[in-house]
Amino acid sequence: MTTGPDTRRVSIDGGQSGSRVRLAIDGTTTDRDDGPIFTSRPVVEQVAEIARRALADAPVRATTLTAGVSGLTPDQSRPERLLALTADLGVDSVFLVHDSVSAYLGANGFDHGVVTAVGTGVVTLGVGDLGTARIDGWGHLLGDAGSAYWIGRAGLDAALRSFDGRSGATSLERAAVDEFGELPELYMRLQGAPDHVASIAGFARIVGREADSGDGIAVDILRHAATELATSVIAALRRTGWHEGDASRVSWMGAVLTRNDMLREHLRDEISTRAQGAVVQAPLGTSLDGVEKVADTPPGHPLDIEIYRAG
Amino acid sequence: MTTGPDTRRVSIDGGQSGSRVRLAIDGTTTDRDDGPIFTSRPVVEQVAEIARRALADAPVRATTLTAGVSGLTPDQSRPERLLALTADLGVDSVFLVHDSVSAYLGANGFDHGVVTAVGTGVVTLGVGDLGTARIDGWGHLLGDAGSAYWIGRAGLDAALRSFDGRSGATSLERAAVDEFGELPELYMRLQGAPDHVASIAGFARIVGREADSGDGIAVDILRHAATELATSVIAALRRTGWHEGDASRVSWMGAVLTRNDMLREHLRDEISTRAQGAVVQAPLGTSLDGVEKVADTPPGHPLDIEIYRAG
Repeated sequence: MTTGPDTRRVSIDGGQSGSRVRLAIDGTTTDRDDGPIFTSRPVVEQVAEIARRALADAPVRATTLTAGVSGLTPDQSRPERLLALTADLGVDSVFLVHDSVSAYLGANGFDHGVVTAVGTGVVTLGVGDLGTARIDGWGHLLGDAGSAYWIGRAGLDAALRSFDGRSGATSLERAAVDEFGELPELYMRLQGAPDHVASIAGFARIVGREADSGDGIAVDILRHAATELATSVIAALRRTGWHEGDASRVSWMGAVLTRNDMLREHLRDEISTRAQGAVVQAPLGTSLDGVEKVADTPPGHPLDIEIYRAG
Repeated sequence: MTTGPDTRRVSIDGGQSGSRVRLAIDGTTTDRDDGPIFTSRPVVEQVAEIARRALADAPVRATTLTAGVSGLTPDQSRPERLLALTADLGVDSVFLVHDSVSAYLGANGFDHGVVTAVGTGVVTLGVGDLGTARIDGWGHLLGDAGSAYWIGRAGLDAALRSFDGRSGATSLERAAVDEFGELPELYMRLQGAPDHVASIAGFARIVGREADSGDGIAVDILRHAATELATSVIAALRRTGWHEGDASRVSWMGAVLTRNDMLREHLRDEISTRAQGAVVQAPLGTSLDGVEKVADTPPGHPLDIEIYRAG
């Protein structure tokens, strides 16, 4: 990593629906938005383009480039290629991580503990004496238990059960009609829509609203989601060397937990009941803050081996 | 409907993975296979082509054409158009039904009761004093509770939970690797595969096998599936006028229940416990037998209004 007064840093928090970019020069930082990074296309080329836009019109100087990318796979993790693509901008040092690593650093810094990063999907990362453990993150078809997609899907399932007479009444039935139109056409409309994952995940907000209004079935969905998140957190704790009674920091990343007080309180209750010693605490900063910390990860830290470097 | 000694009948049981066709002439019946009917394309045109192949080289004579089509929607139910497309074959009478109706008639004949038709998806149909009630059938994203897709998805979810350390060990973890390869790549591979619904549904067979071998988590999945199917059956009973203690016939259609003794026994137990008077009984015949019965539905029978006719 380049250091000294002349060093600048570009940090990119790249997601599937948009990116946040931070430019730090001589102690001054500027944040801006940029477009999404799609893991279905070559990743480092997209990171390089975002860096190029961030540094447009700036004079060439020594630069550290760090990116945390949602769903980054090992074969997409090509820091040497990223360095080659950005050398003309002055980049002489490159760091690439999976977004669970930047979420972890943003939420917990370098302390041991667990982060559960909840958006459309969810991935949970533990860091402890035994190393790191990544839990779930298996996508909407098979996993992502407790995510916005999971909550939204459960809400629509509940609406259809109410419509069928398979359950007691829930205000989610009316809410689903208001959002999507008549229920008998709902599934055909969603199955045919290319953005159905986002549409279903968007219904999580409605489930939260109906739970706040006192609908018992909506409350149960949030409680069940919190149980799923807690199960992932506890698996991450155990696999990284935590034992019942040990103190540990558990935090979160993402708007789903930040905005939903009931979900967060249920998670807090689940953890304090099922994992004595572990305490749910608010994140220290954002995931973009976490990207910025990647380059400062101490040698020998368990997250060190999760960082792809060049330069 | 045409009757008399010169009448012949073509009956088509049209599914998304293949069709069965029965030709009945002067008391002699011949069954054959044909290709699938896709509800994403105009349906009656596909039915007409299957009828044309079934009658190829046969002399033109008065013919009754009946088709039960998987997932038939009201706007695809165009019997007049089907009649026009097949008039040159001698067809002078046409009947079109949703496959839940033909499954019902195949399983229960004209008696009141319930059928649960379980394949990749599931739809449950009740017939009683209050009319008919169709339950679930909401597709793999939001519904189809207890179907092969539902069981297969639950099995892969269980494999990933075991892999993560979110649950106790299950033989489904090893079985999933044997079927699909290493688990960390599983979800990306399935999400990218156009036939992922069929692939996931295919894993239901493996869940059944592991349950038979004594894996507790696989047994729990089948038990939960049976509970879901029973919940749909009971909703269908209630909505069609059944009351606790009334005798009623409950049957099934499809290989998932026919081939899986444990699932069927759990369903039988659930119904006898939760719906006293209702009894699970083996289907009277096949869904193709049910298609053949459509034309003989007595006037005033609750299923009468579910039949689209022309001629």
